Amino acid sequence: MKNNNFISFEQVNLENGFWKDRYELNKKVSVDNVRKRFESSGRFDAMRFNFLKNGRKPHVFFDSDVAKWMEAVAYLITKNPEEMKENEKLCEELIDCMEKAQRDDGYLNSFHQQISPEEIFQNRDHHELYCAGHLIEAAIAYSKATGRDKFLHIMERYCDCIYRVFISEKTAAFVTPGHEEIELALIKLYRYTNNEKYLEMARFFLINRGKTDEPHLFENSRCAQDDADIYNLHEANGHCVRALYLYSGIADLARETNDEALLTNLKDVFHDIIYKKMYITGGVGSTHCTESFTVPYDLPNMNAYSESCCAIAMIMFATRMREIDDSAEYGHIIERVLYNSLLSSTSIDGKSFFYVNPLELALEEYGREVAVPESLREHLPITQRLEVFDCSCCPPNINRFFGNFGNIICLEEKSGVTVEQYINAEITGHFGKIKINGNYFLDGKVEISSNNCTAKVLAVRIPEWCTEFNAETAGTSAEFVKKNGYAYFTIENEFCIMLDFHIKPQFISANPNIRADAGRVALTYGPIVYCLEGVDNGDRLNRIEVDISDLNAAKFEMDFHSMYSISMPAYRLKDDERLYCNAEETEYAPITAKFIPYYSFANRGKSDMLVWVRKH
Amino acid sequence: MKNNNFISFEQVNLENGFWKDRYELNKKVSVDNVRKRFESSGRFDAMRFNFLKNGRKPHVFFDSDVAKWMEAVAYLITKNPEEMKENEKLCEELIDCMEKAQRDDGYLNSFHQQISPEEIFQNRDHHELYCAGHLIEAAIAYSKATGRDKFLHIMERYCDCIYRVFISEKTAAFVTPGHEEIELALIKLYRYTNNEKYLEMARFFLINRGKTDEPHLFENSRCAQDDADIYNLHEANGHCVRALYLYSGIADLARETNDEALLTNLKDVFHDIIYKKMYITGGVGSTHCTESFTVPYDLPNMNAYSESCCAIAMIMFATRMREIDDSAEYGHIIERVLYNSLLSSTSIDGKSFFYVNPLELALEEYGREVAVPESLREHLPITQRLEVFDCSCCPPNINRFFGNFGNIICLEEKSGVTVEQYINAEITGHFGKIKINGNYFLDGKVEISSNNCTAKVLAVRIPEWCTEFNAETAGTSAEFVKKNGYAYFTIENEFCIMLDFHIKPQFISANPNIRADAGRVALTYGPIVYCLEGVDNGDRLNRIEVDISDLNAAKFEMDFHSMYSISMPAYRLKDDERLYCNAEETEYAPITAKFIPYYSFANRGKSDMLVWVRKH
Repeated sequence: MKNNNFISFEQVNLENGFWKDRYELNKKVSVDNVRKRFESSGRFDAMRFNFLKNGRKPHVFFDSDVAKWMEAVAYLITKNPEEMKENEKLCEELIDCMEKAQRDDGYLNSFHQQISPEEIFQNRDHHELYCAGHLIEAAIAYSKATGRDKFLHIMERYCDCIYRVFISEKTAAFVTPGHEEIELALIKLYRYTNNEKYLEMARFFLINRGKTDEPHLFENSRCAQDDADIYNLHEANGHCVRALYLYSGIADLARETNDEALLTNLKDVFHDIIYKKMYITGGVGSTHCTESFTVPYDLPNMNAYSESCCAIAMIMFATRMREIDDSAEYGHIIERVLYNSLLSSTSIDGKSFFYVNPLELALEEYGREVAVPESLREHLPITQRLEVFDCSCCPPNINRFFGNFGNIICLEEKSGVTVEQYINAEITGHFGKIKINGNYFLDGKVEISSNNCTAKVLAVRIPEWCTEFNAETAGTSAEFVKKNGYAYFTIENEFCIMLDFHIKPQFISANPNIRADAGRVALTYGPIVYCLEGVDNGDRLNRIEVDISDLNAAKFEMDFHSMYSISMPAYRLKDDERLYCNAEETEYAPITAKFIPYYSFANRGKSDMLVWVRKH
Repeated sequence: MKNNNFISFEQVNLENGFWKDRYELNKKVSVDNVRKRFESSGRFDAMRFNFLKNGRKPHVFFDSDVAKWMEAVAYLITKNPEEMKENEKLCEELIDCMEKAQRDDGYLNSFHQQISPEEIFQNRDHHELYCAGHLIEAAIAYSKATGRDKFLHIMERYCDCIYRVFISEKTAAFVTPGHEEIELALIKLYRYTNNEKYLEMARFFLINRGKTDEPHLFENSRCAQDDADIYNLHEANGHCVRALYLYSGIADLARETNDEALLTNLKDVFHDIIYKKMYITGGVGSTHCTESFTVPYDLPNMNAYSESCCAIAMIMFATRMREIDDSAEYGHIIERVLYNSLLSSTSIDGKSFFYVNPLELALEEYGREVAVPESLREHLPITQRLEVFDCSCCPPNINRFFGNFGNIICLEEKSGVTVEQYINAEITGHFGKIKINGNYFLDGKVEISSNNCTAKVLAVRIPEWCTEFNAETAGTSAEFVKKNGYAYFTIENEFCIMLDFHIKPQFISANPNIRADAGRVALTYGPIVYCLEGVDNGDRLNRIEVDISDLNAAKFEMDFHSMYSISMPAYRLKDDERLYCNAEETEYAPITAKFIPYYSFANRGKSDMLVWVRKH
């Protein structure tokens, strides 16, 4: 098993351009917007153990929302201490409240202590261990960022309590958490403190999963990831976020215990996702019912779930896998998620968020089930990003994702340095410094350089979408060896290599088994998936057909979303009063279809949207 | 307003061939199978007012199930008295039970009298008036068939009770029924008895609809047909069966009161259905949620509702419209329903029935929402017809539909005689006799003849699907005038005209606004819609593409379903491990695709099925 490390965000300085802008937007707009929402919705008051002030009864997972926001702030403090002064003050206040509220036995949960103490560790679906996991992650980040350990100690005391209840005394009404998360948090805590007790706890929650007949919310155990123990796991199943947090935790355990059997299973699971259950946008989750993986190739577009938290969790899983397994496919998937389902989660102005990220909107069909109660209604996606939503797991998750943005770019390996993502940054490692610079997603060109690098080998991931690739150094062709999806260069202490990935628009077909995409194609340009939007093309986008050979006439334009829009000739079916007619009578009008990056849809008012366009 | 009459089934003798076989199958198999089911499920015991014997608590609409079956038996008695002896005996027994059980005030309902007398006429959704309507229809049919009026008098006494409660005393908790049906039944009763009180009652229930703020089961009044009064009705909305029974009742009222305003509205409603809300199979109902019409062009295939009762109700509505409006479109629609969504309701062996008639089955996707309770699950159609189902409105409705089969064929008009449906039969009218004979749906040829006909004009409907048409008489071309979708022939007392509708297979496109059918075509042959089935073509039918120009190579074969199957060259997408790939890399294998009539799907075990096939 490999034992590599992505270089942590602390050693990554994002530089000019798209991703730096996204980092700044999160810091300057999104984090504060979420703070305001959490204040007004009583989430902070709940954590102040004073929920009555707001009057709103806490939800069972309010603590995790607050924890993720605090974790985001902690990351941001590291590099932006001045800008985070106010947020740090709030964190300190909340930590003091937690300290005061923590029970003598170490227990800490704002919902159960204030609302239903009699249910403490009695209901597996009450998210207590999930909340604890997020608080642990926040406490570690806060300790690292500030050097102050009060929060960390609170969580260590809470861990002692959890150890006692679940492992020593076994007095909880369940064995493993209903919503996974604490497993990966405990291993993070083990790594940070070197206290092996936390590794033991993580292992306990992981190896006992699927072994007992545990109570769960869902109708079947598959949905709760209780159908197989981790040594019999080969498919991705059930609630997607829970599943991906579980797999991330298993990857951590595999690494810490050098367990090859677990790694083998995780590869099966990863392949099950990327070969059978993933949207072209990198999103996962094919149904709102239990927010789940379903059966292979079931990838409906309008009713896609593709939760924003899944995008983040998928990157978490893939990052861990790349550290223990030497394959380019993890980087391919991280890139796919990053530029599409992850980016789409947030509005261009940084203020509002999608919970689900559908691949099609057809507004005229939204009324179709208004006649039944919400609970019985087929799920239809929200058409616009919202500043506030009740189940607010995604916004603070996005805050923390961008808070430590950078730790997916570069991998430090024994043999040298590997560039996984072409994000403009200066990166410091044991090898010295390297610099990544270019307009990767516009012209496919990236310069990688250093004037002080001790590594002898530079590996760069050749993107999945790239069919032609060359490299230059000092004006002449640079030599490299291709292997397993990477190009390997021998480098000097000082070097400058210009990579050229020959970017061009492509029409993509889906696997013939995907019913929803039959007869359709999706436009991509490098890593970016495109879509049609009604605001550019008129609504009822299924009336538009594209001829894939017309792509040669594509025209590019820099647009509101900081990437190219692509226009090309297309056909629109002419209006017909008849519901059905002879297929030979079908008439088309020539039009120009304008495609925009998928992630930027729904930023200009309500409108239809379509990723998979009919093939002419 | 026209005032024509379809010639009633009593004067229609079905002759050799397809439809005669269906009539016989219903009489010999289906009616008895439903009887057995109703006996074992306690429906008859409920009507014996002895539900405890079976032990099963009656449902609020058990009475209507029994009534429809009795109505079917009554129709069958007319022409097959010997074969119906046993069933007639059961009807007599049930009528005696009803007579005994009927309250002194005339009230009669097996559910409310036995289970919840305190709720009598207190809950609009309890289907009391719906049950009464079906009992009235059954009583009329039984009186006509047997000449015995005990049942009819029972229902007249019940009508008196209803009149008192709803019109005189207004003591019911609602004004109009939750499920329409009694309106058209009361007008039938008025026509049979000439008692104007029943017309007044029908008018009361019709004109008060949508005028008051009535309680209803559904979340909105549109779904309950309460959003508009009948003088403001222009669209088809809400629960489809209820809607179509309502529109049929309005058509009856329009005719009886010569109300042109109502006719104008009904034409709008009819056009709203056939131009915007009807499946190619003639089915209606786009969602299982409240079994409803939804928004224009929302016609999902796998989740189609297209209830069997809707097929029958659509024919009821169209038949009434044709009697008061001189247009071929009613006959077109009756034909479309008849050969497709109506026929598909029953298995080839006559024993089992579909409640919903989907246009696509993809078995591998059926597990997709197993993790949630049934009530929260997206509806997925049953893949096989069933002998028994709980909500058993359709099977006895099919029994009665075929029981009086024949009264949609021929219209007696002042000017002459009009043939609407090409069903082999000898028909007797005031004009004398005519005979229809041929293999309409196989070779497009029909002979219409008489050796004793006083009518001077014969009109024949030119089918919607027919683009070329000629006629011959005595070996030479017969002259006719085309008008409004009909061909008019001048006839002698003795005549024989051979119609040739130039039948051929056609690929049909759906209106560009129908999202679900984008990029797809459906194969038809004359009135018959075809489908692919997995048992012939392998499952995952969305992997198959057809080139519409390959239709010239189509081959015909007489198959198990008494009509042609059609085979033609097609393409099947080759397997690919990748989930997404460049569209130019898509590979196809040449195959032969075998299409069978839609109505005959799911008669050879579980299998995928697809009507709208991808266009190559």
